[in-house]
This record gives sequence, C-alpha cells and structure tokens, in this order.
Amino acid sequence: MAEGNPGTNPVTDAGATPSPADLGTALCGLWKEPLSWLVLALPAAVVLEYLDAAELWIFMVSALAIVPLAGLMGRATENLAETLGAGIGGLLNATFGNAAELIIGLMALWKGPAMYPLVKASITGSIIGNILLVLGMAILVGGLYYPRQVFNRTAAGMGATLLALASIGLILPTLYYRLQHTAAGLSAEALHNIESLSEEIAAILAVIYLLSLVFSLRTHRHLFAGAEEELPATGEHRQPEWNRRTSLIVLLFTTAGVAWMSRLLVGSVEHAGQALGLNHVFIGVFVVAIIGNAAEHSTAVLMASKNKMDLTVHIAVGSGIQIALFVAPVLVFASMLLGHPQSLDLHFTPLEIMAVIFAVGVLALVAQDGETHWMEGIMLLGVYVILALAFYHLPGGGL
Amino acid sequence: MAEGNPGTNPVTDAGATPSPADLGTALCGLWKEPLSWLVLALPAAVVLEYLDAAELWIFMVSALAIVPLAGLMGRATENLAETLGAGIGGLLNATFGNAAELIIGLMALWKGPAMYPLVKASITGSIIGNILLVLGMAILVGGLYYPRQVFNRTAAGMGATLLALASIGLILPTLYYRLQHTAAGLSAEALHNIESLSEEIAAILAVIYLLSLVFSLRTHRHLFAGAEEELPATGEHRQPEWNRRTSLIVLLFTTAGVAWMSRLLVGSVEHAGQALGLNHVFIGVFVVAIIGNAAEHSTAVLMASKNKMDLTVHIAVGSGIQIALFVAPVLVFASMLLGHPQSLDLHFTPLEIMAVIFAVGVLALVAQDGETHWMEGIMLLGVYVILALAFYHLPGGGL
Amino acid sequence: MAEGNPGTNPVTDAGATPSPADLGTALCGLWKEPLSWLVLALPAAVVLEYLDAAELWIFMVSALAIVPLAGLMGRATENLAETLGAGIGGLLNATFGNAAELIIGLMALWKGPAMYPLVKASITGSIIGNILLVLGMAILVGGLYYPRQVFNRTAAGMGATLLALASIGLILPTLYYRLQHTAAGLSAEALHNIESLSEEIAAILAVIYLLSLVFSLRTHRHLFAGAEEELPATGEHRQPEWNRRTSLIVLLFTTAGVAWMSRLLVGSVEHAGQALGLNHVFIGVFVVAIIGNAAEHSTAVLMASKNKMDLTVHIAVGSGIQIALFVAPVLVFASMLLGHPQSLDLHFTPLEIMAVIFAVGVLALVAQDGETHWMEGIMLLGVYVILALAFYHLPGGGL
Repeated sequence: MAEGNPGTNPVTDAGATPSPADLGTALCGLWKEPLSWLVLALPAAVVLEYLDAAELWIFMVSALAIVPLAGLMGRATENLAETLGAGIGGLLNATFGNAAELIIGLMALWKGPAMYPLVKASITGSIIGNILLVLGMAILVGGLYYPRQVFNRTAAGMGATLLALASIGLILPTLYYRLQHTAAGLSAEALHNIESLSEEIAAILAVIYLLSLVFSLRTHRHLFAGAEEELPATGEHRQPEWNRRTSLIVLLFTTAGVAWMSRLLVGSVEHAGQALGLNHVFIGVFVVAIIGNAAEHSTAVLMASKNKMDLTVHIAVGSGIQIALFVAPVLVFASMLLGHPQSLDLHFTPLEIMAVIFAVGVLALVAQDGETHWMEGIMLLGVYVILALAFYHLPGGGL
Repeated sequence: MAEGNPGTNPVTDAGATPSPADLGTALCGLWKEPLSWLVLALPAAVVLEYLDAAELWIFMVSALAIVPLAGLMGRATENLAETLGAGIGGLLNATFGNAAELIIGLMALWKGPAMYPLVKASITGSIIGNILLVLGMAILVGGLYYPRQVFNRTAAGMGATLLALASIGLILPTLYYRLQHTAAGLSAEALHNIESLSEEIAAILAVIYLLSLVFSLRTHRHLFAGAEEELPATGEHRQPEWNRRTSLIVLLFTTAGVAWMSRLLVGSVEHAGQALGLNHVFIGVFVVAIIGNAAEHSTAVLMASKNKMDLTVHIAVGSGIQIALFVAPVLVFASMLLGHPQSLDLHFTPLEIMAVIFAVGVLALVAQDGETHWMEGIMLLGVYVILALAFYHLPGGGL
Repeated sequence: MAEGNPGTNPVTDAGATPSPADLGTALCGLWKEPLSWLVLALPAAVVLEYLDAAELWIFMVSALAIVPLAGLMGRATENLAETLGAGIGGLLNATFGNAAELIIGLMALWKGPAMYPLVKASITGSIIGNILLVLGMAILVGGLYYPRQVFNRTAAGMGATLLALASIGLILPTLYYRLQHTAAGLSAEALHNIESLSEEIAAILAVIYLLSLVFSLRTHRHLFAGAEEELPATGEHRQPEWNRRTSLIVLLFTTAGVAWMSRLLVGSVEHAGQALGLNHVFIGVFVVAIIGNAAEHSTAVLMASKNKMDLTVHIAVGSGIQIALFVAPVLVFASMLLGHPQSLDLHFTPLEIMAVIFAVGVLALVAQDGETHWMEGIMLLGVYVILALAFYHLPGGGL
C-alpha cells in the first residue's frame, strides 16, 4: 500500500500554482509556514551538543528538529514521486514514505545491540501510534465537523488484514522467546534459533509488502482511487509543488538533517529517559515513535476535517503497514550487515505484543462498517491512553 | 450507551393504562404477576437468618429474593426516568440500570479484601452472562419464531468495540500480575504498581463511559432510536407505568431489600460454595452474576420473541457495557474509600480474562452482519457452556 | 455444515453421462484420470514394507498412496449420498467427508499415547491447512482469473464463528495444562482433570456440530444453496456419477486401502521424521494433515478457477469445521474406548493453539466483506508460510 504524505501541501490546496517551484521560490514558500521555523531547532541542537549541555536538552531539541525535517522529507519525496509518474513514483512513496523512522532506526542500530530494545519499541510504537493516535485523533476531529463520515471498506479491511499478518510475524518470535525463557535466561542456541526465525519472517513480510504494492499500485489501483481522487488536482494532471531539482535538493538536505539529529537523539536518549523518570520502552513507544510520525499526524487530521476519510485512512493505516512490513524487515536485514555480534530479532516485550494485537483488533472492529463518528475516535484514543498508562507503569527491570 | 429495562412493563404492552398508577394500584398490579411472589423469599431469608439455619439455605433463599427485587428496582428506575424527561432520565437509567449488581458488589467489598475475588468474578460473570447467556438465549428463542431477525449493525458494532476497549483495560493489570508472579508471590511494590494502574484505567473507562452516554443520548441518539421506537407508545408521549411518587417509594424499598439480601448472600457464600462443592470463582461468575441479571434476561428474551431485536441487543450488550465501564470503575473507586489496607485492583484470573476475550470476540463475529438466526444463539450459548465447564474444573488452589 | 467433495467429478462436468456408471465403466473412467495412477503407490508401499525398506521410503510411498485413495473415498461417499436423497445423503457427506483424516487418526490412536501429539498435530494441521492453504490457494488462483469474486457472507461468517467456538474448546484445556505446569510436570490429578474437561468439551462440540447440520441441511438450507446450485445439474435432478453398488464397493476398498496405508504411515513416521530432520509436530501439522486434504484442495482450487466461490468457501471452511467439531471429538471418544491407560485430551502445544487462533482470526477478517481478490489469497498463504517456518524452528524438546 503506497503511503506518502499527499496533501501536506498547503500551496496546491490554494489551487494557484501555475508551475512547480524552483528552490528559491520553494524556500520563500516554506518561510511563510509556521512549522518550518521549527527547523531552527537543528542549529540549536548542534550548539547544545557543542556546549556539552545536559543530555535531556539535547534529546528534546533534536527531537523537535526531526519533526519539520521529517515533514519536509515526506513532502520532497511526494513531489519527486509526482515528477516520476505513477509507477516509479508510487514505489518511491511506498519506500521512502517513512524514511525518517527508518533513519532513526538505523542510527540506533549502529550503536549496537544495547539499542535493539529501543529500535523495536519505536517499531511497535509507530504501528500503534498510526492506528490509535493518528487515526483516532483524525476520526475524532473529523467527527466534530461531520456526524458521519464514510470510507472504502475493502481498502481498510485489507489494511487491517495486512497488519494482522504482520502482527503474527511479530508474535511468533516473542512466543518462542517467552516459552524458552528460564531463570538462567536463554541458551545461545535458542537465541540463534529466534534470530533465524526472525530473519525468515522478515523476508516473508517484505515479499508480502512488495506484492501488496503490486496490488495497490497496479492490479487493484481503483480500490485505492478514492484516496487519490480526493487530492486537489489542477487541470488534467496534478502539478507537483516543487520541481524535480528542488525536490532532490530538499530531500538530500533533510535526509542529512534527520540523520544528524537522529544521532544526537539516540546518543542522548538513555540519560534523557533517566532524567525524566521514564523507562526505555516507554520512550521508544511513545516519544521516539511519535517524532517521526508528527507530519503524517497533522496531514491525516487535516484531511479528516475536510471529510476526505479515504485519504485519512490511507495515510494512517498505510503508514502502519509500511512500518510493519517494510521498515521492520529492512532494519532486520540492516542489522545483519552491521557486523554486530548479534543481529536484530523480532522478539518484543509481552506488553508491546499485546499493544499491537489490541491496536489491530480495535482497528478491525472500527474499520468493518466503513463509517466513522467521533465516538470511534474516542475509543481508539482511549485504547492509546490505556496503553500509555500501562507502559508508564512498566517495572524497572522490564517484563 | 444508556441501558434500562424498557419493556419489563407488561401493562403498557396491553396499551390500556390511561394514567400512571399510584402506589396502591401499582401493588395490585404486581400482585397479579407471578414473579412478584418471589419477593416472599425476602422474609423467608430473614427468618432463616434469625433461626441460624444452614448457610446454604440462607444463600439460596436470599439469592432467590434478589431476582424480583432487582427486577422491580429496574422497573422503578425506568418509570422514574420517564417522568424526568429524556436527558436526566437517560442518565438515571444509565447509572442505575445495573444497581443490583452494584449493591451486591459494594456489600462484598465491605467485607474486605478476602471478598475481592468474588467481586471481580461477579464483574466478569456479568459481562459474559449478558453477552453469551442473555443474548444467546434471546437469539435462540427469537430464532425459533422467526427464521431471520435483523438489528442495527452500527449500534451493535459500537457496543462490541466498547466492550473490547474495556477488556483491554482488564487484561493489562492481569498481564502485569502474571508476568511478575514468582514462586514467592508478588512484591509489595509490584502489587502497589498494579493497584495504581487499575485505578488509572478505571478512571479512563469511566470517562469513556460518560462520553458514550453523550454519544448515545445526545449527538447520535438516532442510531439507537430503533431500540426506542420499538417501545410501545401510547398517544404522543409514552406514559410511564407508575407515577413519580410510586416509583420513588418502590425504588427506595427495593434498594433496601437488595442491600439486605446482598448482605446475607455475601455472608453465606463461602460456606454455601463448600457445601455445593463449587469453587469461589465459579460461584461468582455463574451464580452471583446471574442473580442480578435475571430481570434483564427475561426482558431480552421476551423482546426477541416479539422480533424487537434492536431492543434485545440494546439490553444485553448495553448491560455488559454498563458493568464493564461503569460498575467496575465505581467498585474500584468505592474500595479506595472503604479504608481497607488494600484497594480493589483489576487483575483477574487468566480464565476470567480468556472468558471475556472469547465472549467479546464471538459477539463481534455475531454482530458484524446485523442479522441473527437460531444457530447464532446456539453458538453463543455453546461458548457459555464450555466456559462454565472450564470454570467448574478450576483446581482448588486456583490458577 | 455438510461438507463433501462435490465437483471432484470431471465426468458430470462434461454433462454427458446418461446414467450412473456400474463398476466396470467406473474403473474404465478412472483409468483415464492421471491422478488415479497414484493408486499404484499402494502396492509399491506393500512391497517396500515386505522388503523391510528404509522407513523414510515406506512413509513417503504410503503417504502418496493415501492421496488418490482419499479422493476416491470422498467421491464414492458423495455418489452414495446422492443416491440416498438430500437428508441422509447430507448426513453421510457430513460424517464421512473427512473419513481419511479420521482413519489416519484412529490408526495413530491405536498405537497408544506416544502417538497422541501426532494425532493432535494432524487435527490442528488440518484446520489451518483448510483455512490457510486450501482457501488461500483457491482465492489466489481464482483471483488470477477474476479481479473480484463474491461469496455469501452469512454462510462464511457462520463458518468463522463455528471455528472460533471450536478454537475456544481447544484453548481451554491447553490453558489449564500450561498454568499448572511446573518443573516437576503435572500431577496425576491435574492430568485427569484436563482429560475430563476435554471429554466434556468434545461432547459439547459434537452436539453443536449436529445442530449446525440441522441448520445447514434443514432449517436454513437456502443460505447454503448458492454452493449447491453451482454444481453441474443434468436435467431435473443431478445424476450421480456411479450407481449405488459401485459407490459402495469403491468406498469399501478405498477405506480398507486408506486404513492399511495409514498403518504403514503411522508406523514409519517417527523414523522418517528423524531421517528428514523434522520434528514430530511439524510432520503432523504440515505433512500428515496435507495428505488427507489433497483431494479437497484440488477441488476447491478448481471451483475457484470457475468462479464458484460459494462452493470453494463451502469446501475449505466446511472441511475445517468438520475436523474441529466432528473428527476431533470422535477421536477423543474413540481413545476412551481403546483402553489405553490415558485417553486423548485436547491440550495442544502453544504454537498449535496460536496457529489456530491466527488462522481463524485471519479467516474472519477475509470473510467479512464477502468478496475476494488475489491479495487475500496471498495473505492467507503468507500466514501459512510464516507458521510453517515457526513450526520448523520448534526446538527439539518441544515447547
């Protein structure tokens, strides 16, 4: 399921751009958007790092800097995709739509196995964040404007099934881990077994992701057409906001920026967590995961408030699928190349697994009738809050 | 979701009452209904208690007395609600609709932490009893009269989602308990942690319950209108059966009666269980929980036999929601005020948790197509019987 | 739900048989079908056994022989059913439709309690095989011909609910087993308790199966009519392929053949597993279970390629239901009669239980919209492959 950040684009919404902007015009345009000013957090983070400031400050400022950078990255990807035509463009959106999460994950992987729990927490956090927080908030806000909103059940149902399939892939290594866990921990052989299983499952998930792209971009494009038709179109073919060169340059710089900030974020996360009195897993699931999704979040809510529910569901559910079936496998494969003594497996904490199961289950219940109202948003958010409380109460030693 | 006992009222069904009855007329009316005679079990229980009879007898007779008292209480609440108009009346129904279960729970709480397992068993028993036994029996009986019955999918789907959300709230403290459980039991710190988590979850559930009332009583009243329109209406506005004064007096006396009988019931439950060879949890889930629901049970079955399936689903599912999202949180808060060394938490036995998950899952499957036939009733009842067998075989020490 | 092998019959598909074939004509007809030649594996297996060949060879050849024998058995049952009229015929199909699985199970039971894990693995393997492999492959192949195929949601939804109910019956004894499991194993009393619970659950499942036959064959026959109308009909009443005498003789000989081959299969399975480096449970779930289902498998795929999706769903889901609600209870009862020190209980390995839950959950998601496309087939098959990987990685000692 191709997932981009369509519609983050307030300029085409005005319907007035006659041609794609070059770099200067693009920067002038960004200058006028309040969110872009957050980019100033980037130099601030660099200064704080240079001054050897408290880790908590570095953590917070670098996190702040990632939000607009991830947004710009998504926007550049989307613009680039549009200049490349439906086929390759769709593929580009589908692979780089969650690039920020991917970069944060890679930076954390690099630091070695001690960071694996954080990487995994940010994966599960991204999945439940997209389903419960992003979709819940969008449905709630949309529901405040419209008493009843409708969306395509087939596309949403397929999304829920894909997420269920991914959950199954995440549950099995965890089951193996828990069942073989004794007071003495796991044997090296058992750990190796779980690693192999994780790698094979990651391969299957990646293949299924590719096939789902064939389905949504080629053979059954029309099922997802609702989402695309809702995009603002100028004339016969929708005009991209930026031209290809601008898009590429923005993409290059924001990617570098996200990578740099992620390095600071990952380096400071441990002390920041201690300073805030929050456990590792909570930070991963509820802080790191939200940073990379903030842009999708605002777009999904905006679209819901314009009654474009197909697009809303497409962004939120599609992003969750991309994390589960593309980002997670890529991180597993990347960890195999990094040469650490142990590669990233797919065994999660029981609470993370329960959280994913709950999120997918509630999504399936909410998606099945093809309509939403504000109370459904409340219920999704309610599950998110209950899960946040549970993660907050995680005992120090973990479970 | 407002849940009352609409339609327990056989007199308005006849459509002949010109004005609400005063106390004398009301008592004469009750005199003619066979069920009311069960109220005689109340003085019988008092006599048995005075004579220091076997606990088993006291248990059975007081349980018998609660059935008609709970029924009258629901009816008085409903009549009172009608004299108060839709807004406050709906709220009254929504808060006192399961008052009998609440009173039994409070009486048990009062006796101290040793009774907590029974209180919790009666909560889960009420949830699964409403979903599996009450709804299953109603669908089966309705299905014997009509080959196919239909109901509003949206309202039923929302009910299933609310119950799923509540289940999540009940599962998490249990997960914490099980994962931290060692041969030496739980540390005081861990227990305190679970108590805090339970209290926070109870608060969230209560807030979501309030919002669901706003949804069903105000913003999306029409979705639940099917259930109300099916009620017999005399003239322009439905006439209550009793006048306000009669309703208040009946409510006062039946509440006192239920409280008194609950005290006897709770005092005798332990010995009665031993005498019957039944474990604590079984008694809570399958005996105590049924007593308080008997009136809803008969109403739901009656409505199904009249092909009023919206009302049937409304009573059964709504009652389950009320227990899970209102009665359970209120009991948690009440236990905090009672000054026991330990307050009521939301950690349940694994079997109770599985039972709730199964019940909600099967409900979601049955509710999703918006139609019922007798085999669906059989399947709900089949799950109930399988669960009863499982609870019956619980080993002495519990699991 | 009556489940036979309707449509395995390539002759009536041609629509040219004027009257049911006698034995000679039937054998001539079979002679022309390539699959029938596989029957030659039967004498081959006997010869290998006589020559005391490697167990692995005996295992493989006897497995190969069961495939066509099970297919012929199903075909003979179906023909016999047609000569007996709808009522008794439906019952015959419903009880003997999975006779091959039943015979393999009985042969394994006979060898004693050491074979119980294999019997249970073949039960769960048959359930997930029908839902994930057979249905998944059929939906995929059908989807390659038709972009969108539809089926009756009510019948499929009821099938999913029945399977959910059966899963609950399989989960509870397993839960009891796991919760009471200590380093010292289970006490004799606990084992006996689980046996009693299993037997009672088996009885409930069997009763529900009978009632589901009343539903699908009598009171709500029309819901399943889609499946039957799709069968090729010649003239007013569909002509059976073979006459009654031929059917009976074929049934007799194939039953004897399946029994004989099952004995060889069961006798060689342990050494074959060791030789292949596969664990016991994997063999049961993915090898033994597939052998008995191969005929259904090809029929379901054939029907999907002809856009007869009601029939496809009927065969795959119906076969799963028959295994869970009829074959499993019958095997439990049979084990009680065999006089072994311990009878077959319904406690499974955690992985088997998870596999069944996943399969039923994904089926419910796929069935709920009443339409299929190739990606749904991929998703079902994806879950099957992920499960196969997980079972393959089962540690030697089991979990």
